[in-house]
Amino acid sequence: MEREPVFNAFVMNAPTHNAHGLWRAPHARNIGFSQPDMWVDLARRLEDAHFDAMFFADVVGTWDGYRGGWQESVARAVQFPVHDPSVLIPILAYVTRNLGFAFTSSIIQEPPFNFARRVSTLDHLSQGRIGWNIVTNALGNAARNFGLPDVPPHTERYRWAAEYAEVVYKLWEHSWDDGALVRDREAGIFADPAKVHAINHSGSRYKVEGPHLTEPSPQGTPLLMQAGSSENGRQFAARHAEGVFIHTPTPDAAAVVVSDIRARAVAAGRNADDLIFLQDLSFVVAPNDAEAEEKDRQLTAWFDPEGSLAQMSAAYGIDFSTIDLDRPIGDFQSTRHQGIIRSLIEAQSDKSRTFRDILGVQPTAGRLVGSPDRIVAAIEDWVKAGVDGFNVGFLTLPGSYVDFIELVAPRLKKKGLMQSTYREGTLREKIFPGRGPRISSAHPARRGDWTDFSKIG
Amino acid sequence: MEREPVFNAFVMNAPTHNAHGLWRAPHARNIGFSQPDMWVDLARRLEDAHFDAMFFADVVGTWDGYRGGWQESVARAVQFPVHDPSVLIPILAYVTRNLGFAFTSSIIQEPPFNFARRVSTLDHLSQGRIGWNIVTNALGNAARNFGLPDVPPHTERYRWAAEYAEVVYKLWEHSWDDGALVRDREAGIFADPAKVHAINHSGSRYKVEGPHLTEPSPQGTPLLMQAGSSENGRQFAARHAEGVFIHTPTPDAAAVVVSDIRARAVAAGRNADDLIFLQDLSFVVAPNDAEAEEKDRQLTAWFDPEGSLAQMSAAYGIDFSTIDLDRPIGDFQSTRHQGIIRSLIEAQSDKSRTFRDILGVQPTAGRLVGSPDRIVAAIEDWVKAGVDGFNVGFLTLPGSYVDFIELVAPRLKKKGLMQSTYREGTLREKIFPGRGPRISSAHPARRGDWTDFSKIG
Repeated sequence: MEREPVFNAFVMNAPTHNAHGLWRAPHARNIGFSQPDMWVDLARRLEDAHFDAMFFADVVGTWDGYRGGWQESVARAVQFPVHDPSVLIPILAYVTRNLGFAFTSSIIQEPPFNFARRVSTLDHLSQGRIGWNIVTNALGNAARNFGLPDVPPHTERYRWAAEYAEVVYKLWEHSWDDGALVRDREAGIFADPAKVHAINHSGSRYKVEGPHLTEPSPQGTPLLMQAGSSENGRQFAARHAEGVFIHTPTPDAAAVVVSDIRARAVAAGRNADDLIFLQDLSFVVAPNDAEAEEKDRQLTAWFDPEGSLAQMSAAYGIDFSTIDLDRPIGDFQSTRHQGIIRSLIEAQSDKSRTFRDILGVQPTAGRLVGSPDRIVAAIEDWVKAGVDGFNVGFLTLPGSYVDFIELVAPRLKKKGLMQSTYREGTLREKIFPGRGPRISSAHPARRGDWTDFSKIG
Repeated sequence: MEREPVFNAFVMNAPTHNAHGLWRAPHARNIGFSQPDMWVDLARRLEDAHFDAMFFADVVGTWDGYRGGWQESVARAVQFPVHDPSVLIPILAYVTRNLGFAFTSSIIQEPPFNFARRVSTLDHLSQGRIGWNIVTNALGNAARNFGLPDVPPHTERYRWAAEYAEVVYKLWEHSWDDGALVRDREAGIFADPAKVHAINHSGSRYKVEGPHLTEPSPQGTPLLMQAGSSENGRQFAARHAEGVFIHTPTPDAAAVVVSDIRARAVAAGRNADDLIFLQDLSFVVAPNDAEAEEKDRQLTAWFDPEGSLAQMSAAYGIDFSTIDLDRPIGDFQSTRHQGIIRSLIEAQSDKSRTFRDILGVQPTAGRLVGSPDRIVAAIEDWVKAGVDGFNVGFLTLPGSYVDFIELVAPRLKKKGLMQSTYREGTLREKIFPGRGPRISSAHPARRGDWTDFSKIG
């Protein structure tokens, strides 16, 4: 990494992201999420503190399966309601100059032609500060909102994602040649048609003629984000991602994942340093450890374990309301539960633990609680392990970020662990200094080695 | 009409809309369309002048067929490049308080579930100032950008539009009951799941489970716009539109269309006054007629007839480069041209006219040139004929609107022909005063008479 660690605010256009129930906490402005004001205020604070980007998680369905349906998720605001981040971002980009904006968009939610146009328009409007988190979607209800009977098998989803990426890369990188935009008033030529090309994509899911409808945007391809943890996911991240989100329990575990995915990227013909790795962390911080722990107690009193179980039921495909979460897992040895339940039990050496212990039903799984010094020391450990930056989650909006900005950021900056000023240029140039606004020429989007994509999975 | 005539600025997120070539005119800021600044400036001026809304036309393909392809459209900026209006609008809504924002979105470009979420998010972010212009798409290249071999037959397109509308109405009007949004911090209930419903739509094109992912937005269904001129189009407008765009050559012709569509709406169970009719007009205005005519000469010197022919070739499905536009149409009597060419010829009693005359190859077809008094008198004639307002097109940005605002708007206001202040509330409440933010209970979206939709066409 040629620069200080990256810090993104990891948010969602919803009342909560992973800290279920904390929309209820005093001073939390989470429920104002539908209006611009809270977000504008947050974006300005983040930019003043030199955060790199706001990163919007997203889902296009409800988490269903707990107590037989999605009713608990609706009642408890489990990533619900969830509004479109792509139309909030323009406002936040307009009120800032340097902060980046990445958002999640699933391959099931929109045809690639329309999506590519929207992203290019956003990249123009933000002067090149847009990132895309490529996801396949794992929610059954989301699948059924888009005409699918259910979530497709894992390998099929990644093949689909590979073709989706192929289409948008063709539009972003291979439809307009350099110099195509002429805008010659005297000659009456806006664009040189010899340098604007149809893409004539014809694949197993998509047929797209082109040309791309927007002028070449500052970045062309937006900064590409991905969070793959499965075998297919890691392979996909290695081929496609410039920013890989990881959610590992310890710095040592992070080092293993980073080194694995980086090796895969090199094997796929990419440069090792064309990828950065961002660990997901949240913080409860106060001037000293005791105060931080008291603050954590006060905040987590608002935590809603039912919301967490609703999300986990959908994630694991198990209705956790049918399981006694407080019995030792040893008691389940001879039950009828199979599959994932069996795997969860077998993975534990201590059979006196309960499901509630194992599932880690808590506000945010990676939350660090302590004084600024304790937080800074923890961050340092992750950085030493080879992590390039962090997706900073929240318990309350904007409180979690206000605390981080006031108490942690100044110390990080003093130690060179956070940038104290913005670099010039697009989001990509800020993240990968000195390499220009376009995606690396070693990335498949530029190389155009589409045939390789079919090898995914 | 219970209020002054409506005035919308009829624009496009592109270098030009219908005045081809005028992006080249001195002082035109059209080519800055990719950035927010020109638009923000324009939106603020329009709001200061009490315009009702900015209405964004859109296409999701290039106009092809002239000289064998789309190359001339690309070269001459014929609605190309064309950027996504839905991500520009949030910025413009953020810098204004009363101006409305309508945009075109085609049924081919995005699944209804995703579109409905985006529109609801926009309606929230704008505090209820969003309108949607429903279009089916008539461009072959656009169809082929979305996997279709070509534009579907007319009747099929309108059946498709009817099902698309059905899905989004179910999401906007029938997924969240009144009172579903509880946000009770003490009880820990964000939304009452008994009042949030799946829609379980299962039609010939779409299967959509729901629920709708956004909180109920101020308007629910956005203000619905439509521009139908064909038999199917008029029928669709009569069932669905609250604002009908018309492009008639004279006030008398407008009166016929208005009365026809209004009668159809009443026959479909709607209230006659739940629809307004907006005539498409453009203006070249100066302090006196002579100056206006001189200004028109200077502006239209930049007109690019080749651009106009490129658009018309796609619109008519004829490559006009293969036709001698300056020969009298009588000469074509015995040619091999059939179909539309034959119809165009037969519709003319004067066979000495040329195709160039008939096609009206000019900057904007409905352009009025003259002093403010002349313009005001013309507007008055349209209003007397029963037109409820106007979509004001442009020759240059922002010049055409600056002139209108400075010279015409004050006179219109003095005569009560344009509002001098904004009414409170959402876009719908401003357009239809005193009836509340929701779409009329007599509209199919509220009535839920989906079965009728299949009768379209």
